[in-house]
Amino acid sequence: MSKTIVAFQGEPGAYSEQAIRQHYGTEATALPCRSFGEIFSAVQDGRSTLGMLPVENSLAGTVIPAYDLLIDHDLRVQAEAIVRVEHCLMASPGTKLDEIKRVKSHHQALAQCEQTLHRMNIEPINYYDTAGAARDLAANPEPETAVIASALAAHTYNLEILARNVEDLDFNYTRFFVLGRSEPERRDPSKTSIIFTTRHVPGALYAVMRELAERDINLTKIESRPRRNRPWHYRFFVDFEGHEDDPSVQEALLGILKRSSFLKVLGSYPAAVMPE
Amino acid sequence: MSKTIVAFQGEPGAYSEQAIRQHYGTEATALPCRSFGEIFSAVQDGRSTLGMLPVENSLAGTVIPAYDLLIDHDLRVQAEAIVRVEHCLMASPGTKLDEIKRVKSHHQALAQCEQTLHRMNIEPINYYDTAGAARDLAANPEPETAVIASALAAHTYNLEILARNVEDLDFNYTRFFVLGRSEPERRDPSKTSIIFTTRHVPGALYAVMRELAERDINLTKIESRPRRNRPWHYRFFVDFEGHEDDPSVQEALLGILKRSSFLKVLGSYPAAVMPE
Repeated sequence: MSKTIVAFQGEPGAYSEQAIRQHYGTEATALPCRSFGEIFSAVQDGRSTLGMLPVENSLAGTVIPAYDLLIDHDLRVQAEAIVRVEHCLMASPGTKLDEIKRVKSHHQALAQCEQTLHRMNIEPINYYDTAGAARDLAANPEPETAVIASALAAHTYNLEILARNVEDLDFNYTRFFVLGRSEPERRDPSKTSIIFTTRHVPGALYAVMRELAERDINLTKIESRPRRNRPWHYRFFVDFEGHEDDPSVQEALLGILKRSSFLKVLGSYPAAVMPE
Repeated sequence: MSKTIVAFQGEPGAYSEQAIRQHYGTEATALPCRSFGEIFSAVQDGRSTLGMLPVENSLAGTVIPAYDLLIDHDLRVQAEAIVRVEHCLMASPGTKLDEIKRVKSHHQALAQCEQTLHRMNIEPINYYDTAGAARDLAANPEPETAVIASALAAHTYNLEILARNVEDLDFNYTRFFVLGRSEPERRDPSKTSIIFTTRHVPGALYAVMRELAERDINLTKIESRPRRNRPWHYRFFVDFEGHEDDPSVQEALLGILKRSSFLKVLGSYPAAVMPE
């Protein structure tokens, strides 16, 4: 059997590659892509078996461009992966922590470490990417300079980790969808993700939700976004517990279809366990 | 009467300052702040009258850190402002468009102009901020180099706009809350924004929404986020049409209070009209 190839967006050592390692260990080959769109085309044209797509972060919220692509393509969600984001401060081997005066990273990672860096008296410098900052520091070592990126990035580029968990808040998780061309095998407890649109009339969303609530189906996510160029029309991203083959879920989906102008089932997949 | 001071996050010329200009014209003084948290403290300690806080963007989604601060502070939403994000390509005066080989801007702005820049054969270079890129190019002019930022940034730093609306998708709006210490005067149509939490039991959210739907109150936004360190507890960001002084809204709020473990009314305010 040929090895599983999983596409991800970013440089080698990105948190998305860490999600692949956490989910598949060394059984999969990670394929770096420049954009989310390239993940979809890599899976569709067979260059990769699967794609690892970030869909939400506990601090930053839903990744709307990821959902835009999920609407426009017909890949199925095979699994979800939840990765604890643990920012590491790293530098060229031999550097000591008290020598560090500045740190380069993506602005969002720097923002998540703001208080810690302030306490350590280290100046934050914005960089376009976390793993890219690690790669560039390894290629062009600079004194007194560190990078914030994943432990995998330190390993990938042979940098030394000077401090782990430099984030201010430890409730920092990113949730990924594993995308593929086929249906995954059922393994309960299952979750199902759907996208639908309603018109802006009193109770339209309520009527849709009644279809789930009446059947004791638990929501685990709901989010509304205005539809492009369609004032007063909304699309909803909804996740719930259960599998699309369950009779109660099938009844609810048929009820939602009657009340929505568009419904797409992204997939039913095994619910992830939160990492420790 | 002393002049209104409105705090915003970013460099002068940021899209947030443009929101202040659009909403208040020249009647207000804009006060730049380094972080969202500083907007709240400026309003609380009276250094500014109001604060202009971005809460969602039509392409990027909800600004979760803004909501985190709204939960932790007790400012009231006085108004909402919706600003069309129109990215301008600008350079040192006298530069011609066909001389431009590279453009610096915030990665999100560059991503929103990706196809246009590709067609124009201009290389994107990541920078920590849109208005900051304009300020730095004006201070240190570079040949063949442009910046993507707001028209206000071009005006602020005396750069020449070479092309307007270089964004790929024109449905790019940012919604702001205007924050203050007092209640705004009522001016209908009104909207009300609330935050509440429910426990993860079947139908808990449904029961809350019934309180609104039964009274024909229209939702205009709903979003769930997991609560920090409280698995299976969720908080919801909800906006609806109507004013907290309306009897039907008051009844609905009392009903929601019975069913939620936490309810905060951010404010009732005049609904914004979408800009053309």
